[in-house]
Amino acid sequence: MKNCIFCQIVAKEVPTDLIYEDDQIVVFKDIFPKARIHLLVVSKEHVQSLAHLSPEHTSLATRMLTLLPKLAKEQGLEGGFRTVINTGTDGGQEIDHIHFHLLGGGPLPRM
Amino acid sequence: MKNCIFCQIVAKEVPTDLIYEDDQIVVFKDIFPKARIHLLVVSKEHVQSLAHLSPEHTSLATRMLTLLPKLAKEQGLEGGFRTVINTGTDGGQEIDHIHFHLLGGGPLPRM
Repeated sequence: MKNCIFCQIVAKEVPTDLIYEDDQIVVFKDIFPKARIHLLVVSKEHVQSLAHLSPEHTSLATRMLTLLPKLAKEQGLEGGFRTVINTGTDGGQEIDHIHFHLLGGGPLPRM
Repeated sequence: MKNCIFCQIVAKEVPTDLIYEDDQIVVFKDIFPKARIHLLVVSKEHVQSLAHLSPEHTSLATRMLTLLPKLAKEQGLEGGFRTVINTGTDGGQEIDHIHFHLLGGGPLPRM
C-alpha cells in the first residue's frame, strides 16, 4: 500500500536489513528499540491490524506466531522473550500494518 | 497438570468467573490488572509457553489469536487494545501455562 512504510520495506523500496524473510513474512529490527533485542515481525500482505485478520489469513497469523520462538532462539534469547501486538490507537499501534514486536535480551519493563 | 493454577481454573477446581469458554480456551480477568480491562486468554490444554507449541497446536494458537479482537469488541474496546505474550523467565512469564494478556480501556503504559 502506498504511503505505508512497512509495505515499502516489503517492496524493498526502503532498504532495510532483513533478519528473516519468507513468502509471507519479513523480520527486521525496530529503529527505536525498547530492549537490547527488539524485532518486528511483519506480514508481506498489507493487513491493517490483528482486528482485520480475515479467516483467509489464518495460516499467516499462525506462521507469524510460531516464528517468534524460532527467532528468539536464533537471537540467543534462551531465557525468554516478550511478544507485544498493539491493535488500534488505544492499543498503541503506530503503523497501520500488522506487526508483532519481539523483545528480549535484558531486563524488560514490567508490562 | 497438578499444581498449575490455570489447569485448576480450567478444571473448575478453583472457582473463577469465566468471561468466555469453548472446547479449547477459557478467558478470565487477571487478578492483578495492569489496565482497566485486563483479561487472560488461556488454553485448556497445559502447554508450557509459546515456545512449546508443537505443530499439532496450530489451530489452538490461531483460535487464541483470532479470539482477541472479538473479546476486545465485547469489552467495548473499540479504540484498540494491546496483546502481550510473555515467554520464559526473561520474558516475564509468571505462570508456566500458555496465556495471552489482553489489555485496554484507558491509557496503556508505553511498552
